Amino acid sequence: MLLTADARGVFPIAPTPFFDDGSIDTASIDRLTDFYLDIGATGITVLGQLGEAPKLEHEESVAVARRMIQRAAQLPVVVGVSAPGFAAMRALTHEVMAAGAAGVMIAPPNTLRTDDQIVGYYRQAVAAIGADVPFVLQDYPLTFSVQMSPGVIRRIVGELPSCVMLKHEDWPGLEKISTLRGYERDGSMRHVAILCGNGGLFLDYEVERGADGANTGYAFPDMLCDVVRLATSGQREAAHDLFDAHLPLLRYEQQPGVGLAVRKYVLLRRGLLGSAAQRVPAAALTAAARAEVDHLLARLALRDPRAGLPPL
Amino acid sequence: MLLTADARGVFPIAPTPFFDDGSIDTASIDRLTDFYLDIGATGITVLGQLGEAPKLEHEESVAVARRMIQRAAQLPVVVGVSAPGFAAMRALTHEVMAAGAAGVMIAPPNTLRTDDQIVGYYRQAVAAIGADVPFVLQDYPLTFSVQMSPGVIRRIVGELPSCVMLKHEDWPGLEKISTLRGYERDGSMRHVAILCGNGGLFLDYEVERGADGANTGYAFPDMLCDVVRLATSGQREAAHDLFDAHLPLLRYEQQPGVGLAVRKYVLLRRGLLGSAAQRVPAAALTAAARAEVDHLLARLALRDPRAGLPPL
Amino acid sequence: MLLTADARGVFPIAPTPFFDDGSIDTASIDRLTDFYLDIGATGITVLGQLGEAPKLEHEESVAVARRMIQRAAQLPVVVGVSAPGFAAMRALTHEVMAAGAAGVMIAPPNTLRTDDQIVGYYRQAVAAIGADVPFVLQDYPLTFSVQMSPGVIRRIVGELPSCVMLKHEDWPGLEKISTLRGYERDGSMRHVAILCGNGGLFLDYEVERGADGANTGYAFPDMLCDVVRLATSGQREAAHDLFDAHLPLLRYEQQPGVGLAVRKYVLLRRGLLGSAAQRVPAAALTAAARAEVDHLLARLALRDPRAGLPPL
Amino acid sequence: MLLTADARGVFPIAPTPFFDDGSIDTASIDRLTDFYLDIGATGITVLGQLGEAPKLEHEESVAVARRMIQRAAQLPVVVGVSAPGFAAMRALTHEVMAAGAAGVMIAPPNTLRTDDQIVGYYRQAVAAIGADVPFVLQDYPLTFSVQMSPGVIRRIVGELPSCVMLKHEDWPGLEKISTLRGYERDGSMRHVAILCGNGGLFLDYEVERGADGANTGYAFPDMLCDVVRLATSGQREAAHDLFDAHLPLLRYEQQPGVGLAVRKYVLLRRGLLGSAAQRVPAAALTAAARAEVDHLLARLALRDPRAGLPPL
Repeated sequence: MLLTADARGVFPIAPTPFFDDGSIDTASIDRLTDFYLDIGATGITVLGQLGEAPKLEHEESVAVARRMIQRAAQLPVVVGVSAPGFAAMRALTHEVMAAGAAGVMIAPPNTLRTDDQIVGYYRQAVAAIGADVPFVLQDYPLTFSVQMSPGVIRRIVGELPSCVMLKHEDWPGLEKISTLRGYERDGSMRHVAILCGNGGLFLDYEVERGADGANTGYAFPDMLCDVVRLATSGQREAAHDLFDAHLPLLRYEQQPGVGLAVRKYVLLRRGLLGSAAQRVPAAALTAAARAEVDHLLARLALRDPRAGLPPL
Repeated sequence: MLLTADARGVFPIAPTPFFDDGSIDTASIDRLTDFYLDIGATGITVLGQLGEAPKLEHEESVAVARRMIQRAAQLPVVVGVSAPGFAAMRALTHEVMAAGAAGVMIAPPNTLRTDDQIVGYYRQAVAAIGADVPFVLQDYPLTFSVQMSPGVIRRIVGELPSCVMLKHEDWPGLEKISTLRGYERDGSMRHVAILCGNGGLFLDYEVERGADGANTGYAFPDMLCDVVRLATSGQREAAHDLFDAHLPLLRYEQQPGVGLAVRKYVLLRRGLLGSAAQRVPAAALTAAARAEVDHLLARLALRDPRAGLPPL
Repeated sequence: MLLTADARGVFPIAPTPFFDDGSIDTASIDRLTDFYLDIGATGITVLGQLGEAPKLEHEESVAVARRMIQRAAQLPVVVGVSAPGFAAMRALTHEVMAAGAAGVMIAPPNTLRTDDQIVGYYRQAVAAIGADVPFVLQDYPLTFSVQMSPGVIRRIVGELPSCVMLKHEDWPGLEKISTLRGYERDGSMRHVAILCGNGGLFLDYEVERGADGANTGYAFPDMLCDVVRLATSGQREAAHDLFDAHLPLLRYEQQPGVGLAVRKYVLLRRGLLGSAAQRVPAAALTAAARAEVDHLLARLALRDPRAGLPPL
Repeated sequence: MLLTADARGVFPIAPTPFFDDGSIDTASIDRLTDFYLDIGATGITVLGQLGEAPKLEHEESVAVARRMIQRAAQLPVVVGVSAPGFAAMRALTHEVMAAGAAGVMIAPPNTLRTDDQIVGYYRQAVAAIGADVPFVLQDYPLTFSVQMSPGVIRRIVGELPSCVMLKHEDWPGLEKISTLRGYERDGSMRHVAILCGNGGLFLDYEVERGADGANTGYAFPDMLCDVVRLATSGQREAAHDLFDAHLPLLRYEQQPGVGLAVRKYVLLRRGLLGSAAQRVPAAALTAAARAEVDHLLARLALRDPRAGLPPL
């Protein structure tokens, strides 16, 4: 089962669960996977930026991906393979594709500047991993400092048939979605799936602009699934109501650096992770921050009962 | 009336009003100023980054600042004087201080990297403008790419007595506020006012962490005033309720680049500006974006009647 | 006399002479100008990055440019007008063009990333200054962090007829010259003058690749004139011999930050400046560095008698 | 044999030799190693930035390092272990130390900005690799965009006893050497070896400022050895004469991006590499560039017979 340009819905970005001692918590991988299946996710992405991919050794990365692929048999699993060199990218790609991954996700190195450099990088990446491996183009300037204009994305999609999906997390990015969908309508670009990241901060309007769904790691992916379902079934205000209820927490979780600690803490409180541990380097959650998250959850529970969680 | 470290409350960042032809709209300056006085603002900041300061000629800058200073006689007015060189910074500072400004705000040039470079820059800036001019230290890494650790801020506050206020817009920044207030408690740093920017995106918890208020340009500064008032008078949940009601719009307005167009459009709809025009370079609001803002306002009006605005 | 695409030879980048107290040294401006005329310079550029332009107030900038324009009556004088906003850029351009400048030089703001952003910026700059003002496109990624691919330069030249010259200081840049000259040969780009900067570090091969000369501030512009003359009159090895003799000093002067101090010190030793003073912020020359420059000059004097200078 | 703070002389940065098909050329590794031994190198660094380290798979990296370590039995071999995460850094470190490496070299990730971030990164790196592994601190802001003030280096040296050497390639960096040596003299910092990189562009004065030698990859490391020997044995002008003779080629080789292609081409012409091939991404040498290098070599041969090389 390979990823195609028809992907839609929600592909949660899976965190990598660790025990407090830093070793990998396989039971939590299974629990997360089952949860994603349960809530109606249409795919899963592992080993993304917030999956702490650079903190894993090669064999660990393969093991984490393989475990999730096998457990989520019905769902396409995309594996992040971004690496500082093409040798490592190729090696990881080949192993995870052999293990049944649906495709890979590639972020640009933060040294790229010009349009030609960006297009050239993806051309070389495809040469390295093979043109038969579907890939997700990750457009996240806030983190990677690489700015892709709509025209550059169109060039990449045009040149590289194995580009089937855009993980859209430009900010601002609403007009970019409209522009890309306009390219499809005027025939200058073939269709690719657009799933949105950036913590989900603009998901409410992104789906209205033409995005196919979400590809992000917010600790309530069930809300993301609901919002996409409501928005695409004509229940616009209900979608916004639910989204707005989550926005205070979502915004808090989307803080650079500390965001992953928030996310893992909430997933711990939800019983989906056995520990909120990260491998170093990790931003820790202070007592004040933990109290703020608890407060946000308590307020959210007034509007979404799924946030009504027992204390730790 | 000079700015002191006891500043608190809300200093709205005033936009610079233009007519559609790009000339300065003095009547709107007056209307904005009166509005700020009316809603309980405790100060005003003009010619900030989102005041389109770099798009004004020197004489225009002085004229805009002078107009607002005279109209807001009861309130301290801080003037942004950031410039690529100290000659221009000194010239503008001297003119606006002579006109009655309460102090100036200085952002770091985006080439600064090391702690010593940052401290050295502010040392030179003070030498240029004079040690008798109170200044606001602007800490906004998202826009200026300059990262100031709490220790650097402490060094600046320690070395430069004319530093009386921090415009805090680091992101994430909650722990930074706690750290700086901790420095005050342990006696290693004197007190300075901390007013928060970054569009107000974390104002709800920033005041709980010890910030003295807000210094940002959100199009409902009356909400900012209310939230600070509620939060500092023990009405915590009411503060959060009001803040959360505004968060969907606030988040939308805080988008880099396009945010100022959103802000000016809302201020136009509120009758505070005569036009939403910006000088070039300006990100325009598409019809789709305008419809989204209208939708956000309509939803907000259900919870805050001030957002119930007549159509244009 | 307006700058045209036929410019060639050497346009020295003039430093701005200051007295030790920071005021402008007009006599040294005159002396420098006469020297440039004397050595066969074909133009002059004032108020460039290393002319300390951002340290001057507006009136000072106009005065410096006017003085040099009047003194160098026979030569085209290009004025750097880079500014953080178009209002200041337009104001300075209009004043210096009225005073007889041949054109202006515009560097990109260091926030530009994508090809479209770069082209759009120059489009807006031309709209601001007027399409009748010839301008020099400054391509200096090391300092401005903006990377212009050859295709972007071609787009700018194609869209904006008033772009008549490229100040080329990319690094590496030899292939860029070849590519641009190739565009001219294949008819996809009209001819523009290419004068090279970057301290002259690759001038020896740049002229062989098709550059029209130099546009830089090395303290021996007479050497630059000689090298261009020798290289373009078939005396290749003589050009390299002279260039190589200067390379140890030239390389030393081209150090970021401290380079201008070296340059001004050498110009002081040559009797062309009355003082090596810079306005703040300025990197000072330590005693060790001064001794190194003296040593470099002494060694150079063995091969080029112009470096045989009396001690201060 | 572990690296200590007493290191001095020249540690050439070894390129990784490839066959034209991209596989590793072991015979050329041996030939290079023997050459380094022969010319008086006092150590070797492998898998640096210009050793194309990110293009190797983990097993290849270990194999290349092991081969060189075994062949260079008398010399300390330092291995570059910079990686995007500590897991990979630790794994490679443990394997190469077990294979007999003398220490490792660690470059900072290009996201570090504040002094505390830089110190914190090295603290975590040492925690990852073990405090018993000597490491080289690589200070190369031009490539890594991380600026380390002298005070930051002093903090790292003070906190982390396993930091025994600074690979100094700041630019400008002469005053930094003087400052660090001053710290040693005033007792505020213990002695560490300082070997200079940056292509050797300022080696002539760096050794006079107190550097212990060179740690760079210029294609004539025999020249580097001679210059260090001459400079440290009182033959100052002879050192400069030799250095200056090489400067035109050295400067050409030091171009970002294309420099490695120049270096490998010269090493091929010297018979030390069997091929100039790089793995992708690689900047190719055009015919024009090759002719320029040939020209530089021919001119150099007039002053240093080692550059008199047979044509390919």
